[in-house]
Amino acid sequence: MQVILLSGGSGKRLWPLSNDVRSKQFIKIFKTGENQYESMVQRVYRQIRTIDADAKVTIATSKSQVSSIHNQLGDGAVGISVEPCRRDTFPAIALATAYLHDVMGVGLDEAVVVCPVDPYVEDDYFAALKDLSDLAEKGVANLTLMGIEPTYPSEKYGYIIPEGKEKVSKVKTFKEKPTVDVAKDYISQGALWNGGVFAYKLRYVLDRAHELIDFDDYQDLFSKYETLKKISFDYAVVEHEDSIAVMRFAGQWKDLGTWNTLTEAMTEPTMGKAILNENCEDVNVINELNVPVLCMGLKSVIVSASAEGILVSDKEQSSYIKPFVDGIDQQIMFAEKSWGDYHVLDVDPGSMTVKVMIKAGHSMNYHSHAHRNEVWTIISGTGHTVVDGMQQTVRPGDVITIMAGCKHTVFADTDLSILEVQLGENIQVSDKTKHEL
Amino acid sequence: MQVILLSGGSGKRLWPLSNDVRSKQFIKIFKTGENQYESMVQRVYRQIRTIDADAKVTIATSKSQVSSIHNQLGDGAVGISVEPCRRDTFPAIALATAYLHDVMGVGLDEAVVVCPVDPYVEDDYFAALKDLSDLAEKGVANLTLMGIEPTYPSEKYGYIIPEGKEKVSKVKTFKEKPTVDVAKDYISQGALWNGGVFAYKLRYVLDRAHELIDFDDYQDLFSKYETLKKISFDYAVVEHEDSIAVMRFAGQWKDLGTWNTLTEAMTEPTMGKAILNENCEDVNVINELNVPVLCMGLKSVIVSASAEGILVSDKEQSSYIKPFVDGIDQQIMFAEKSWGDYHVLDVDPGSMTVKVMIKAGHSMNYHSHAHRNEVWTIISGTGHTVVDGMQQTVRPGDVITIMAGCKHTVFADTDLSILEVQLGENIQVSDKTKHEL
Repeated sequence: MQVILLSGGSGKRLWPLSNDVRSKQFIKIFKTGENQYESMVQRVYRQIRTIDADAKVTIATSKSQVSSIHNQLGDGAVGISVEPCRRDTFPAIALATAYLHDVMGVGLDEAVVVCPVDPYVEDDYFAALKDLSDLAEKGVANLTLMGIEPTYPSEKYGYIIPEGKEKVSKVKTFKEKPTVDVAKDYISQGALWNGGVFAYKLRYVLDRAHELIDFDDYQDLFSKYETLKKISFDYAVVEHEDSIAVMRFAGQWKDLGTWNTLTEAMTEPTMGKAILNENCEDVNVINELNVPVLCMGLKSVIVSASAEGILVSDKEQSSYIKPFVDGIDQQIMFAEKSWGDYHVLDVDPGSMTVKVMIKAGHSMNYHSHAHRNEVWTIISGTGHTVVDGMQQTVRPGDVITIMAGCKHTVFADTDLSILEVQLGENIQVSDKTKHEL
Repeated sequence: MQVILLSGGSGKRLWPLSNDVRSKQFIKIFKTGENQYESMVQRVYRQIRTIDADAKVTIATSKSQVSSIHNQLGDGAVGISVEPCRRDTFPAIALATAYLHDVMGVGLDEAVVVCPVDPYVEDDYFAALKDLSDLAEKGVANLTLMGIEPTYPSEKYGYIIPEGKEKVSKVKTFKEKPTVDVAKDYISQGALWNGGVFAYKLRYVLDRAHELIDFDDYQDLFSKYETLKKISFDYAVVEHEDSIAVMRFAGQWKDLGTWNTLTEAMTEPTMGKAILNENCEDVNVINELNVPVLCMGLKSVIVSASAEGILVSDKEQSSYIKPFVDGIDQQIMFAEKSWGDYHVLDVDPGSMTVKVMIKAGHSMNYHSHAHRNEVWTIISGTGHTVVDGMQQTVRPGDVITIMAGCKHTVFADTDLSILEVQLGENIQVSDKTKHEL
């Protein structure tokens, strides 16, 4: 089975754990063992491989997520179709489909399944994905969708109205998010939730793409991606297609887009250092800080603390977080990179202190800063630095002083932690020039 | 007027703002102007001086609070009777009284008023203190207490039952903390709350002290302080005294010992970076961190965040915090010293990163560590370091490496910030040997 996982969004709804550089799908929140947690993307990938050990997974995503995908799934485990910029789902699916054909060598008659990266589901969902792939391969329709049996008349989802009540039937029509009463009416007609999952023969989407976009192949599409107009797959393709089938799925399906639904999926009420007194009811704490959170007498509350900030919210209210987070102008305090990660420890006028961890075998880019000096103190591990071409081995306690304009990098022999003090009147993340080593 | 302020307790009830090294009375929580806050001790001292510009204030406290008192009230503004260790209120009051006589030259017939350092009151309370001092000076009784007119039948306070209903009358008896029903009965008899305020002629307590403790003078009492037994002033003195008067006080009086009562005294609902959505009711946030706290849909909740931890508590429940805080084994992350302050930024096996600020004109002790190396990076300010006798001027970007065993200190010419990386297998605050410079 060929699966395209759509991994988008900045996930501000899960602030302070997610932010502009860390999307919700990479937060390790699902317990798999003693002090062992996996992220949404790790969970979904694991589940796909459980159902189909030969499944080929391609993640359609932005450049900013590539490091996290490699870190969490390993190098080369999945294909990555990198969108040069955000252009909605039709360009993203067209690009990933061209990538499958031109880069991965997938045949025109092979089936492809498209699925969001963040459903919270059990293995039966992925077995259904396989069935969907088989239906597409058999050619029951140009597009075959998964329709999820509704468990309540939700206002949050789009609805698919099938022609019949069979397991697989033709689609009569699609309906936008309705009111509760209208949703009840849809459900009485046998309507299903649209969970954004569908399968097709590769040729079908490639043809649609060539009809709507003037391009030669994957490389050409990639290079002109910024010029494409933003349009969803629904508007560009689904609305104009008559040959659409839907397959019913009656298993568990949760959309973990908000704190409220996310905490329902936690197997234990707290993660990280947390103390709840006996008068707490329905309280979840997710604490990434190194100091304890003490909760007393709270009811239906979520507490989440990270280097970016602290959320304390009534569970119901937590779905309305986005406009408040949009209003927060907080410097990025934590980022995961292909070579390791960094934490901002302290910000002062004229200085910033950052803890940098470089994974064994990795290195930074060779780079320089125009407007700041840096002092590095090696905290743990061994490696070697290069400063203006001069190489030096480093171990704990060693200090490297890097004046503005100096080209520098560090190679980690073992996992290497560095305390970096940045000094200057104008410290900016953008003040960075890359050089050839 | 001579006032002894009793400044005790570690104030765990106000965790995470108070801890073993920062007592509640030093938390700057009362707004006095735009971004201007004062602490309980600053507020009380200011109020005393408003009522009596000539008042002499002596603070009876432990060594750990001396730096904070100097920092907050200025050098020499108050006398400080330092208790070498904690020995309950009778030894503390005896020592402070001997200090007044032998060090400050207060006469045997002068009146002394003893008052806790943390009442949240208006100026009329201190006017009453002055009246109490005058009554003691006139000799209406050996001990003259302030009795606070109860506003409700509290179970939290001790009660004083006076003989009559006059402004000043003899005390009939004292009652321990009662149940609500018993408290109602006491109040119907004209009972008053015991707020721990009383006045006496200096000679009276000095005589009691000599009766109960074998000592010559202040220095002698100070030197044998550790050998004294723990006993409260009530048990040692009040219970055996027949000549006790009480003066009624009907003004505002609040005991700010818990988060619940403390937040009632806040003039604005939040302090520090905080965002409350429109569905929050009766919510207070006190945030000392540099990242925002976002609260949504909370009712009657206190959120407090510091480098030590995060408290999220229902207001009622917040008075039951102590056993939970006792159970937290959190390293001290922040401390105020006579020479400045320090913040722990990061703790790792084998290293600890600390930001140290030294005030202009101050310096650390000349000291060495047996089991750790240190690397200092100057972040801001100027000064000079001494390392094994060798002096060096320092400015931002300079790095000083101090190997285990090296004697070292730094003098600040201007306010000086240093990023200190401690490196070693066994990093302990206690690993410190002082030396003569």
